[in-house]
This record gives sequence, C-alpha cells and structure tokens, in this order.
Amino acid sequence: MNRNAPIGVFDSGVGGLTVAREIMRQIPNESIIYFGDTARVPYGSKSKETIITYSRQIVEFLLTKQVKAVVVGCNTASAFALETLQKEFDIPMIGVVKPGAKVAAETTVNHRVGIIGTLGTVNSDIYKNYIHELNGGIEVFSKACPLFAPLVEEGWLDDPITYEVATRYLNDLMKHEIDTLVLGCTHYPLIRKTVQKVMGDSVNLVNPAYETAISLRTALEEANLTNSGTEVKHKFYVSDGAEKFKSFANTILPCEVEETKDINIELY
Amino acid sequence: MNRNAPIGVFDSGVGGLTVAREIMRQIPNESIIYFGDTARVPYGSKSKETIITYSRQIVEFLLTKQVKAVVVGCNTASAFALETLQKEFDIPMIGVVKPGAKVAAETTVNHRVGIIGTLGTVNSDIYKNYIHELNGGIEVFSKACPLFAPLVEEGWLDDPITYEVATRYLNDLMKHEIDTLVLGCTHYPLIRKTVQKVMGDSVNLVNPAYETAISLRTALEEANLTNSGTEVKHKFYVSDGAEKFKSFANTILPCEVEETKDINIELY
Repeated sequence: MNRNAPIGVFDSGVGGLTVAREIMRQIPNESIIYFGDTARVPYGSKSKETIITYSRQIVEFLLTKQVKAVVVGCNTASAFALETLQKEFDIPMIGVVKPGAKVAAETTVNHRVGIIGTLGTVNSDIYKNYIHELNGGIEVFSKACPLFAPLVEEGWLDDPITYEVATRYLNDLMKHEIDTLVLGCTHYPLIRKTVQKVMGDSVNLVNPAYETAISLRTALEEANLTNSGTEVKHKFYVSDGAEKFKSFANTILPCEVEETKDINIELY
Repeated sequence: MNRNAPIGVFDSGVGGLTVAREIMRQIPNESIIYFGDTARVPYGSKSKETIITYSRQIVEFLLTKQVKAVVVGCNTASAFALETLQKEFDIPMIGVVKPGAKVAAETTVNHRVGIIGTLGTVNSDIYKNYIHELNGGIEVFSKACPLFAPLVEEGWLDDPITYEVATRYLNDLMKHEIDTLVLGCTHYPLIRKTVQKVMGDSVNLVNPAYETAISLRTALEEANLTNSGTEVKHKFYVSDGAEKFKSFANTILPCEVEETKDINIELY
C-alpha cells in the first residue's frame, strides 16, 4: 500500500463535503478523492440492500483511483453498508456513525441523548446501539427529519421556514430534556445555527464529522499510512451535475475546487 | 400488437400515481403496468442525460411486460426524455406536458399562465415552448418548487408549513397576475388545496393528468388499440421499497393495490 495515496471519501451527494472539510482541517497533508452520488441522491429513504449495492459500486470506483483508505461520509451508508464493505474490502474503512456515537456518549452529563438523521439512519437504530455498547445507562431518543436535507439543498439555512420545520421535528426531543444532540446526517451541520436556536444553548450539538477526521488520522497512523510527501491534491467526482456540485462545494470547502468530473457509477 | 395488452405508466416514484388514477377513471377497462423508480427518485434535479438513460431502462422493462403503449407519468422525464423515447421505440408514447400545456393555452382568459414544477422541468422551458406553439400571445411565468415533492412525501399536505413554503414560491407568480397555473409535477395535485388557498379562487389550476388520460384514450382509439376484453388487472413495480410504495398507493388509487414487486432496474 502506498502511504502517499489519496483517501477516498463518499456520500450520496454534497453532504459528505462537511466530512471532507474536517479531514482537510485535521489532516491537511492528505489528498482526497471525493465521490458524490448525485444521480441517486438521496440515500435516506432507500432500503438497506440498495444502499449496499450503491456503496459497493462506489468503493470499486474509488479503488480504481488507488485510494489507501475509505471514509463513508454518509450516515445512511455508514448505518447500512459499512459492515458489509469492511468484510469485502481489505483497506481501512471508517464510517461517521461510530465516532459520532462515541462523542455523544462521552459528552452527555444527564445521560439523555438525541439523534436526528434520515429515516434510514434513525430506523436502523445504529446510533442507539453504539451508544449502548459504550454506556448502557444512556437513554437515546431519535427523530427522522426528512425535510432537512432538501431545505439545505434549497439553501434555506438560516431561515424562518427551516426554523418552523425544525421546531416541529425537534419538539419531542426537547420534551425528553436531552443535553446532547447528534447531527446524524452530513447535511445537518449546515443548519446547525437553526437547530441550536430551536434546542437552546444548553444542548450540546455533536457533529460526527470532526471526530471522524480524528479517527481517520489515528487509523492511518496505526497502519503506517500517513502521507510522507508534501503535494496535496483533492479530486472530485459525481454521478450527475458536476458543475452544480462544484459551485456548492466551493461554498463549503476551505480549498478551491477546480474541477469536478461526471462518471457513470452504474458501470462499477 | 395485442389490443388487450396493458398500458405502461412510469414515474420517478409515487407522483405518477396521480396520472394512473386519472387513467383508471377515464379509461376504466384498460390494465396498467406501473413502474416507480423509487431507488433513484427524485428526477427533478438530475441532468437530461441521466433522465434519458433512466427512462430508456424503464421502457425496456415495461416492454418485457408486453405493454401496448407507454405513458411517461413524470413531468421531468416528459420534458427531457419523451422525444428520444418516441424515436427509439415503436409504440404509442404519451407524456404529461403536451396535454397540460394544451389545457392551459385553451383555459387562460387574460393570456397570463404560470407553470410550477421541478428545477429540471422549469429550466427546460418545455411548457412555455408548447404553449407558444399553440398561442404565441400567451405570457408564461415559471417557478421551480423543489420542496413541494419532499413535503408531499412527508405527508404535510394541508399544513401551515406547506402553506408558508407555497406562499414564498408562488409570490412572484401572483405579482404577474396569472389566471391559470399548471401543476407541472405529478406530486402537486396532492397539495392542490394549499396551492389554491395561496393563489386564490380566481386562479384556475390545471392538472395535466386528467388531459393526459384523455389523450391516451384518443391515441388508443386511433391506433385501434382499445381493450376489447373485460378483465382489468393493474400491476405495480418499483426499484426500491415495495411495501412503503404499496401503502402510499393505497391512499391515492381508487383500486386496491394487492402487490408491489421490487425489481433491479439497472439490469434493463
């Protein structure tokens, strides 16, 4: 394995860019090959079997780019496909759920944690299960928020309508008096401000992307795979709408995205 | 061609069920093979090339069920793929856009028509072009409403949040004093009441599904393809989440959906 090879990061679309951003910040000398499955987005309402098929195709594609590790930068794909991928492929593979669950379990004081995510992530109970592995005494309350991702994609981030939608979705979680809320979908950090306004300042919001980047750094160190070179070059691929993706990416990432390429993911 | 063969109807997901419903009402002795591309929904934000590829696969699948005609029950696919499909396949093929445009052109009194739909449909200008073919003196105003379909899928039909979103989207169209508004996405008839409330009673809402069913009846008559038998049997296929689709379909259709089958559409 070439330690100067890039890291593969994938998501159903643009959401995983919040994970790529954290990796760029925490491990700035690693290169990233990003794939956004914009032709088949969203993943949140699709079945486990479909998500596994899609994720497998994407890893096959990333391997053609000689990646040394893969980050599943999508909560739904982490929930449904990560375990299968780890069995099938022989490189370090990291999801966003386990790191997010770990921070939540370590952060909560009153042992009442909320999880918000897509239908797929929430119904999988994966956050709850990981948190209970770490501490069985924590009560976990979950709520699917299917409109959050479309609202982010519409660009209505700090917006009265998004606030209304958030109030309706989060009402139950507030009643449960949680002190920690996991943003269990990579789109959600982009409406973090609105979610915080609804929940109040006493609730700590957990963005799994940060901890995922730290886990990746540790995994690379343990496998002797940290980049020893100096040249960093990120590359972006999508399954549809490269230009639209590029302009969105440029509003999120600390680096400039010069080019994004369309590929036919169904061929992998 | 067997005149007692079924009619193929397809959509990106559940929206086309509003078209299937009109066909069941207007031509009750025809059987329908419905395909909803629930694994790759939504189509509205995808590129023309991708929509053509997906639509071609679906027609190939429908042909394995010996359909005698195909209704493209999705505005985005009608806008992007219908023309290509009509060239490639040798059976009657009808979209929802042309019939919808015809009603709008015939209905408007003040010659000011509004179109709402997905980004793909609106940016294609297809409604505007068809309306201008019929009457160049009609002014057409369009607005993409990307959140309407997710709101319908969330089930927030007659809802204050949907009303707020509709008010924001439709504000410009109201300023243009249109007297006719085309519901240019098959999801939208399901929030017809909210849209009417925002626009006021003086604006006439056009649901292209109704006129599409009438066009289909005419096309079948002209091609001597009307069903001469008595047995009507509708069948439903999706690319993901058959059970979820079935329960949604049962809330929309006048018949009971007994079974929905999952198929792998990428194989066609």
